[in-house]
Amino acid sequence: MPKAELLDPQGQAVQSAMGRLGFSGVVSVRQGKRFEIEVEGQITEERRIELEHLAETLLANPVIENHTLTIE
Amino acid sequence: MPKAELLDPQGQAVQSAMGRLGFSGVVSVRQGKRFEIEVEGQITEERRIELEHLAETLLANPVIENHTLTIE
Repeated sequence: MPKAELLDPQGQAVQSAMGRLGFSGVVSVRQGKRFEIEVEGQITEERRIELEHLAETLLANPVIENHTLTIE
Repeated sequence: MPKAELLDPQGQAVQSAMGRLGFSGVVSVRQGKRFEIEVEGQITEERRIELEHLAETLLANPVIENHTLTIE
């Protein structure tokens, strides 16, 4: 997701559109990306660290985005 | 998220890149969008239905995307 201190023009456009469509009371909308990654075998602690590293370097831009890794 | 039966070229590019970066055993990667919407007051059942409708019409393209609405 874009960091809170940065403008998010896509989110702002969605927020305006929600208002125009009659849905009021929206405080903020942020638009980001979501990746669903299916991996063979068990996610060991080592694999989790590798995935976290990939999320930081390949999937997210840490200058402007925060990321969260969730394992299911 | 893009529907399972559709090609997802962005996800495939990420999957290839993960392999090149030495992370093997990836079965699939799908890339989609995530919206974080902050709303004033409590989410009543009526508001939840309105949000679900907006998700279907404004935020997702139901021809090619599935969506999930999570309330926190």
